[in-house]
Amino acid sequence: MNGRVLSIQSHVAYGYVGNKAAVFPLQCLDYDVDVVNTVNFSNHSGYGHFGGSKASADELRKIFRLMEDNGMLTPHRLVTGYIPGAEALSAVAELAKKLRARRRDMIYLLDPVLGDSGKLYVSQDVIPIYKSMLPLSTIITPNWFEVETLTDQKIADMPSLRRALTILHEEHEVPHVVISSITLTPFLRAALPSSIRPPEDADNEDYLLCISSSSSRGEEGSQSQMSVVHAQCMPFISGYYSGVGDLFSALVLAHFSPSPPSPSPHLPTTTNGVSAPTQNGVDSAALPHPYTSTPLSRATSAALTTTHAILQDTATHAQTLPLDSRTSTDDELDNKEPARVVRRMRGRELRIVHGQDVIRQQRAVPRRTMELWVDFWDA
Amino acid sequence: MNGRVLSIQSHVAYGYVGNKAAVFPLQCLDYDVDVVNTVNFSNHSGYGHFGGSKASADELRKIFRLMEDNGMLTPHRLVTGYIPGAEALSAVAELAKKLRARRRDMIYLLDPVLGDSGKLYVSQDVIPIYKSMLPLSTIITPNWFEVETLTDQKIADMPSLRRALTILHEEHEVPHVVISSITLTPFLRAALPSSIRPPEDADNEDYLLCISSSSSRGEEGSQSQMSVVHAQCMPFISGYYSGVGDLFSALVLAHFSPSPPSPSPHLPTTTNGVSAPTQNGVDSAALPHPYTSTPLSRATSAALTTTHAILQDTATHAQTLPLDSRTSTDDELDNKEPARVVRRMRGRELRIVHGQDVIRQQRAVPRRTMELWVDFWDA
Repeated sequence: MNGRVLSIQSHVAYGYVGNKAAVFPLQCLDYDVDVVNTVNFSNHSGYGHFGGSKASADELRKIFRLMEDNGMLTPHRLVTGYIPGAEALSAVAELAKKLRARRRDMIYLLDPVLGDSGKLYVSQDVIPIYKSMLPLSTIITPNWFEVETLTDQKIADMPSLRRALTILHEEHEVPHVVISSITLTPFLRAALPSSIRPPEDADNEDYLLCISSSSSRGEEGSQSQMSVVHAQCMPFISGYYSGVGDLFSALVLAHFSPSPPSPSPHLPTTTNGVSAPTQNGVDSAALPHPYTSTPLSRATSAALTTTHAILQDTATHAQTLPLDSRTSTDDELDNKEPARVVRRMRGRELRIVHGQDVIRQQRAVPRRTMELWVDFWDA
Repeated sequence: MNGRVLSIQSHVAYGYVGNKAAVFPLQCLDYDVDVVNTVNFSNHSGYGHFGGSKASADELRKIFRLMEDNGMLTPHRLVTGYIPGAEALSAVAELAKKLRARRRDMIYLLDPVLGDSGKLYVSQDVIPIYKSMLPLSTIITPNWFEVETLTDQKIADMPSLRRALTILHEEHEVPHVVISSITLTPFLRAALPSSIRPPEDADNEDYLLCISSSSSRGEEGSQSQMSVVHAQCMPFISGYYSGVGDLFSALVLAHFSPSPPSPSPHLPTTTNGVSAPTQNGVDSAALPHPYTSTPLSRATSAALTTTHAILQDTATHAQTLPLDSRTSTDDELDNKEPARVVRRMRGRELRIVHGQDVIRQQRAVPRRTMELWVDFWDA
């Protein structure tokens, strides 16, 4: 067994987002998962028509207190996702603080769910709470917009991207950052190492970029740079699919291993060949030079590989559905006929159960490997 | 994929009862599971210290209505377990009635959670509601006490046992009944076919009996008997473990296949070799004479095999825990020191994730086969 994970996310009766997207994959990968549901909804909000009940801050505190009384708050790993409102988030923040104090080597993946593509879908007052939680985390998995929001930093070029990562690693003391599914803007494409850059004749729209960054603070010989950055381009799958980020984050957490793999010519290990976890579950000794790979880049590669395969399977399956279930997003038509959205959404629920052999890495799928962005910090 | 299951049961953050014991196994066996939580608790009640929130009847109806509006109430199979109070149970009963009317071949496993060993742990007023739900079911999995409660029939000998099954099959129109973990009383032991009966020198206390009964109403040549009864004795594993019944019921549902396996000398099939599901997902044509096995006995055999292996693994693991975590039940000491109970309960949480290869039938474990109780109905 891989130990206990405490997963605090949303619950939907139908479909695969939040805990429904995260818990089964974690269990398939041999984790005992303690599951706290922040909301109990019928389905995700993308359907337009949804609802149920939200756990109040008091209800969450009550569950945490009872678990504490029963000696059940001893997870090796923690993942927090969508939490509705500042009150409830504060209750989760208190818990994360207590668990971190109890276990410095606990691996905490914090997914700061704030919004996407320029739009907040939580209230403003959760932002400072998330900022205050960042130093407790081991790994965060924000999207592009969430990075900008957490760093108060519009990212328009490499200097601003470097500044944003510096703020996360330095000011907010986040050891590991993964930014997935970034639109491949011209400045990013131009800056990418040739090994990662898409072919000249390919369109930016056909790709998404994933970046991972592991702080190298206090590393020997790393004065020159703030972090070790890896990246990979993924073929873009058109259409909106919910829960992809929740699945991806769960898989990054599941595959994150603080200690390095057995010594290999590609990955020099520390003198004694092993390394002990230090603060926030980060194993600094697992970040040797040259950084062929890091614990984070390895976990991200595995998560990308599985997530992309399941998304591809879902998209392929959606194409086999009746015509009226595979319409494309069209605000005008969608507003005129809400059922149109519902049918489309049902057809796009992630095929997580169908892909369980992929999750268990028992079916061969195209491997997505995060590659070192050698000169990322060279201004 | 095996289709969609709607599972309506309790949720606990920590441990494996209700939906936490049922959903993962169903997913491992390739079912898409829609999950409605009737309660959101910290842990099961056996810990003595527990709590959280219960879904009100209105909250359940709201979830069902939203799912209905979104065309999400189309499960192939339905399982209902612990539902707190008559109000909430009525909401579930309404739903079950609607789903049954919509789909005559839906397979509905109803676990009438009323109490155990002489004690009700629900309020009296849920009993008539459960009785009214019985005709909607395909399979019910009551324990001994629940059979007595649903049939108003104390079971003290073979005639009263036959009467109880007759009441369930005839009056309440239940196609399939499974009674698991029955204390092996002298009258049962004496009546068992020799092929099932434990060795002469063995104690009754060392065994539990499982009985399955498939109605043969309207079967040709079955005028002589009410149902086809199968049984098996299981080695008794001492100690109280929670969630075993929830796991077992989920597995019976998962493995229940209305149509017969491919023709074999042991199991004659219908003239055309296939058979169409009829009422309540029961395939009468799958109950030919001689009843070497039935869809129910095959599903029960698979469920017994997996459940007993996981229970055995859990018991074995519990024995490796520190002394203070493997105390035995002692009301006096337990009352004096509640933490004693908590430690014991934590050590006895079912090892469902650890046993997932057993659930997937990918690890060989001792096979438990339900055997025909040939002369069960011969008074």
